[in-house]
Amino acid sequence: MINEKYLKYHDVTIGENVVIGHGAIIYPNVVIGSNTFIGPYSTLGEPTASFYNENSGNVDKHDFRKTLIGPNSIIRSHSIIYEDVEIGEGFQCGHRVTIREGTRIGKHCRIGTLCDLQGKLNIGNHVSLHSNVHVGQLSNIEDYVWIYPYVVLTNDPYPPHGKLKGVTVRKFAQIATHATIMPDIEIGENALVGACALVRKNVPPERVIVGNPGKDICSVRDLKDREGNCLYPWKNFLKDYRGYPWQTKGDNE
Amino acid sequence: MINEKYLKYHDVTIGENVVIGHGAIIYPNVVIGSNTFIGPYSTLGEPTASFYNENSGNVDKHDFRKTLIGPNSIIRSHSIIYEDVEIGEGFQCGHRVTIREGTRIGKHCRIGTLCDLQGKLNIGNHVSLHSNVHVGQLSNIEDYVWIYPYVVLTNDPYPPHGKLKGVTVRKFAQIATHATIMPDIEIGENALVGACALVRKNVPPERVIVGNPGKDICSVRDLKDREGNCLYPWKNFLKDYRGYPWQTKGDNE
Amino acid sequence: MINEKYLKYHDVTIGENVVIGHGAIIYPNVVIGSNTFIGPYSTLGEPTASFYNENSGNVDKHDFRKTLIGPNSIIRSHSIIYEDVEIGEGFQCGHRVTIREGTRIGKHCRIGTLCDLQGKLNIGNHVSLHSNVHVGQLSNIEDYVWIYPYVVLTNDPYPPHGKLKGVTVRKFAQIATHATIMPDIEIGENALVGACALVRKNVPPERVIVGNPGKDICSVRDLKDREGNCLYPWKNFLKDYRGYPWQTKGDNE
Repeated sequence: MINEKYLKYHDVTIGENVVIGHGAIIYPNVVIGSNTFIGPYSTLGEPTASFYNENSGNVDKHDFRKTLIGPNSIIRSHSIIYEDVEIGEGFQCGHRVTIREGTRIGKHCRIGTLCDLQGKLNIGNHVSLHSNVHVGQLSNIEDYVWIYPYVVLTNDPYPPHGKLKGVTVRKFAQIATHATIMPDIEIGENALVGACALVRKNVPPERVIVGNPGKDICSVRDLKDREGNCLYPWKNFLKDYRGYPWQTKGDNE
Repeated sequence: MINEKYLKYHDVTIGENVVIGHGAIIYPNVVIGSNTFIGPYSTLGEPTASFYNENSGNVDKHDFRKTLIGPNSIIRSHSIIYEDVEIGEGFQCGHRVTIREGTRIGKHCRIGTLCDLQGKLNIGNHVSLHSNVHVGQLSNIEDYVWIYPYVVLTNDPYPPHGKLKGVTVRKFAQIATHATIMPDIEIGENALVGACALVRKNVPPERVIVGNPGKDICSVRDLKDREGNCLYPWKNFLKDYRGYPWQTKGDNE
Repeated sequence: MINEKYLKYHDVTIGENVVIGHGAIIYPNVVIGSNTFIGPYSTLGEPTASFYNENSGNVDKHDFRKTLIGPNSIIRSHSIIYEDVEIGEGFQCGHRVTIREGTRIGKHCRIGTLCDLQGKLNIGNHVSLHSNVHVGQLSNIEDYVWIYPYVVLTNDPYPPHGKLKGVTVRKFAQIATHATIMPDIEIGENALVGACALVRKNVPPERVIVGNPGKDICSVRDLKDREGNCLYPWKNFLKDYRGYPWQTKGDNE
């Protein structure tokens, strides 16, 4: 009655120097790169719905698809990564993150505590999601994008139809807290979406959108801090963070 | 000092063919229907505050009220269902769901990852809550309602008074992402609340409300997709989802 | 390969009459006051990033800073409290709360399910955060403040710069659900921020702010309930809640 088979880590490939926290559950066909930490009470290779519907929750009957966690990664406690997820090297995530099936994540990404990645996603390299970001199925997020807490990338244009169309977020775009992006929208390269904005139209590259409904108010090149310094390009201000290709080792904290 | 008594499942009734995941905690007076899955690290029958205040956390002293999980259900991992909750058959929930005491949930409901059901709730049949929906105490949600991520049903008209008045959501109403419904409000049958709307007045049946503050902009019968097809009634578009009474078996995925 | 050392509670000080739930993880240099409950699958003294970066996840090498949980407290299940957190007596938190390093919390505070306290925080006495509140680093929250679900206190004026400036919330201020407070903003004493407000300017004491963008609409002294009774001062309406200094024992539920 109590199913403990998956705690024995059968059919799992574990690299050198991997630390697995207490009570982590690892289903079959998971590959963990070297020097990676798997937090306590997390799950790798969580089965999709067919596990219950077709295979009665029987681990031996379910055909687990491959799950790949890159080397030098940190999966913090209580996180759940489904089967058919591939994550590149240098990944870090917070606590209680969910990443559902059919997701590909590049190198050096950071996903904050409580983020909910709904699956069928393409996420590039060096993407940063702060806490509690909701990424609807079929979203595409390119390199160097930053998304802040409680942002929702939606995907259902006519709820509750379920004819899903994902959001695309181009390179270096920034989406501030509590913003909502409607289905099938593209956020252009280097664009900035302000806090609490509701974005219903495509955002051209380098534009700044604020408000509900969202309005295009200026170019990112017009943004200045209190001392009158330009805030753009974002790249110039990312030196405090590790691993960007334009950084030398001395920039690191 | 370490309280492991509740891991022994005493005074628990478990139906046929139930699978209980590793480390699930089941307190006394829980009844689990047949063919149900209880995810790892979840809790059933979680005690209310009097457990701490009056009974010093002593499982033997606390008078656990009945908790009922219907047959053919899936409780995913890390979810917490309090005592005095009754859930009908065919229930499915995501990970890390919280359902507090005094809640009644009908048949064939789906509650997404991270939903927070605050208790003293009446929820009908075939209700779907997407991820991370917050349902304040004393809410009523009727059959076939769909609610999307980060929606909040509030209940405190004059914070921090605590004189709570719940929200009522009538049959087939749809509430889109990040919408907030103020206390004591009724959302009428078949109504549609748009993304990020703040609803401060009762919504008549079949009306569409958008914006902050919310404005009544049209009837749901006026809504069309890009090809000019009517989007209403919602019922016609729910055939991809399982178990609705108007579905025949061939409609299922 | 599997790291279970921290389950043995070495270098941990535990007061009288403490109950520790199944599977709770307690790292070194944690002090737990008497009569306190530690929920199942929670973590106390969670190590910061240097644990991974400098000490390869080796519990013996990492210099754990002190973590202090006051007496008469309840930490509910799946919560995570980092090292270098000090919490006063009579603390209660919900499930899956995260409290990061460098945080000081006074006496008799309540932190709801899924709250995400990002660290480097000063929180006074008798502060109540409802479910799923996000408190950015460097925030200051004074005594008797109430904050409702999905509120975000931000801290990055020019994302993604990372030059953080926290929010200050003065005594007795109330911040309603889904409100967003921009970085470096001060919410004055006794002020009320309405549901879904976006606050971009300092709020003077006793003012009411609503909307996106936030507008100052009246004094809290002008607010009345449906029967025409003044809603202010909040203090007069807090008698249903336990432990306020102006309460006598008979006020308690």
